Amino acid sequence: MPKPVVISIDAMGGDHGPSVVVPALEIAAKTLPDVRFLLHGDEAALNAELARAPAARAVCTVVHTDKSIAMDEKPAQAMRRGKGSSLWNAVEAIRAGEAAACVSAGNTGALMAISKLILRMSADLERPAIVASWPTMKGVSAVLDVGANVESDAEQLVEFAIMGAAFHHAVHGSERPTVGLLNVGSEEQKGHEEVREAHRILQDSPHFDFDYRGFVEGTDIAYGTVDVVVTDGFTGNVALKTAEGLARFFGAEIKQTLTAGPLAMLGALIASGSLKKMKQRLDPGRVNGGPLLGLNGIVVKSHGGADANGFASAVRVAVDLARSDFTAEIDRNLKRLTAEKDQAAKDDGADGAETQGAAE
Amino acid sequence: MPKPVVISIDAMGGDHGPSVVVPALEIAAKTLPDVRFLLHGDEAALNAELARAPAARAVCTVVHTDKSIAMDEKPAQAMRRGKGSSLWNAVEAIRAGEAAACVSAGNTGALMAISKLILRMSADLERPAIVASWPTMKGVSAVLDVGANVESDAEQLVEFAIMGAAFHHAVHGSERPTVGLLNVGSEEQKGHEEVREAHRILQDSPHFDFDYRGFVEGTDIAYGTVDVVVTDGFTGNVALKTAEGLARFFGAEIKQTLTAGPLAMLGALIASGSLKKMKQRLDPGRVNGGPLLGLNGIVVKSHGGADANGFASAVRVAVDLARSDFTAEIDRNLKRLTAEKDQAAKDDGADGAETQGAAE
Repeated sequence: MPKPVVISIDAMGGDHGPSVVVPALEIAAKTLPDVRFLLHGDEAALNAELARAPAARAVCTVVHTDKSIAMDEKPAQAMRRGKGSSLWNAVEAIRAGEAAACVSAGNTGALMAISKLILRMSADLERPAIVASWPTMKGVSAVLDVGANVESDAEQLVEFAIMGAAFHHAVHGSERPTVGLLNVGSEEQKGHEEVREAHRILQDSPHFDFDYRGFVEGTDIAYGTVDVVVTDGFTGNVALKTAEGLARFFGAEIKQTLTAGPLAMLGALIASGSLKKMKQRLDPGRVNGGPLLGLNGIVVKSHGGADANGFASAVRVAVDLARSDFTAEIDRNLKRLTAEKDQAAKDDGADGAETQGAAE
Repeated sequence: MPKPVVISIDAMGGDHGPSVVVPALEIAAKTLPDVRFLLHGDEAALNAELARAPAARAVCTVVHTDKSIAMDEKPAQAMRRGKGSSLWNAVEAIRAGEAAACVSAGNTGALMAISKLILRMSADLERPAIVASWPTMKGVSAVLDVGANVESDAEQLVEFAIMGAAFHHAVHGSERPTVGLLNVGSEEQKGHEEVREAHRILQDSPHFDFDYRGFVEGTDIAYGTVDVVVTDGFTGNVALKTAEGLARFFGAEIKQTLTAGPLAMLGALIASGSLKKMKQRLDPGRVNGGPLLGLNGIVVKSHGGADANGFASAVRVAVDLARSDFTAEIDRNLKRLTAEKDQAAKDDGADGAETQGAAE
């Protein structure tokens, strides 16, 4: 029996609000056992949707607010004026102990700023990272950061490795995730200083709950060479969006190709079942749900434009994380990193002269 | 009548050497009028291949050398020991005025180092950039840098814009190319300092032979939103390889999907003509040929693993560039950039007080 969990939902977030969120919860209620939802948003709008969603209605509690944060509101403004909004209340429910995790399709910057304000970062992490679940030839890989941190130093990249591995373990079920650092080649002298320094730290720390496999390249993401691909938020965001654009290009090309003439159309008709399955397998919405990692609490960001199936998978991610050992695993590995740094500093201090001599 | 050109070829470069290069020249000789080739490499191996390639034989002159540069040789080593190799001689032929451009599928680092040594950089450019021709929903966009420069400052990004626009004009025929800067969002405050500074320079300089359109995101590459996408070599390389990996993933998925059962197979058989056309349209080999931009001379890098069709398209790129106003266009725009900087400095000096007053 899975343990019962309560998930707090920002029902007004995203491009579609309740008209997508409630049907998504209907799907979630039917497929995820023993989950209850706290629905933050406009009571009238939510009850109208819930009237058509019996499974969701049975497990939802509506918490009314008539305030919400606009998708284009600046994070600083949202922090100042967002108190009492559906997004704010959804996050606050975690801090108050009423929910184990929260899901929002709202404004990413606002969600990040408010989550950081209310929940605080765990250990001495600086900023949350966003992780993407990326379909690959072998299954699903975790790629992070995909946009929270425009520049990342070596230490942050190592933290991403720790958080990404814990996420992959919790949500995608790998026993001991393999981790790679994204670079422009696999040779040690390639890439910029941050990447090479992170490589040295990861290589010299064999006590993590994951297997560090060294540098990987862009092609390795789709190949599924490693379970976790670590990169800075700028590169990760560009890679993710480049792939999303290409996926849509392929979709359009397939459609056009298979309707180009009577023979192709006949072929497409016959093969349509298989093509549909393929489209589902590659659909980014199927693996929607990017948690903000590094917070004292589980906050999952859904795509703003996600449909009901997409939002439902973000909910599944939140439930998986809430039921896992996720936060403890991150803390454990961060402590190991700190312990090794302390030990290294101590060793340096104790026998610095000897080490210096041995280095030549 | 197109003007006659001589292209110098490193016939020993790449994973396959003469067995791909000569069949590629056979294709090129049949499709490109009034082109002659200087073939640098092992005479015996080349003559054996040319015996089976009558069209190429008629327009090729073999220049023998038994020396070649290994695909995994370090650039520094290649520079020291590479003199007299097929790659070296192919580049040297440009400097000597024997050829208008050169094509090599050899070691990228070695090609870049040796080209820089022999041809030197034009104007005050620092390092060559590599441009990729990227198939999009609207045609082909130029994306650069895709790997020559791991870190790029604002000035380099502006130079990439100038070089990329000249390339797109020469090879892909746009009259006045549109240019975008790759970023993680379209708002001005997003991205790191180098990108924002380059944005300011490009926005304030309206006298280039291209239209600067501001920031673009990863999705815009496949959409073909702009003709030229400008980014640093790290991000560009990751984006390009991520897309290559995804394209292969899609290819594998389509194949698997369409052979998954008898109905799908029948459909695939009927639609195979259209699917084949689509595969060709998306094939990176079709737009193979990334010139090293910024040199005093035209050097085109082919993928090491390109097949004869791929190498032939790299040859076509070299011919198009050789017949164009390419180098002059780059020089012209670089001069405009310098002139505007000088003017700005002069203005600042002449009426600094007035400007300061007006700024408030």
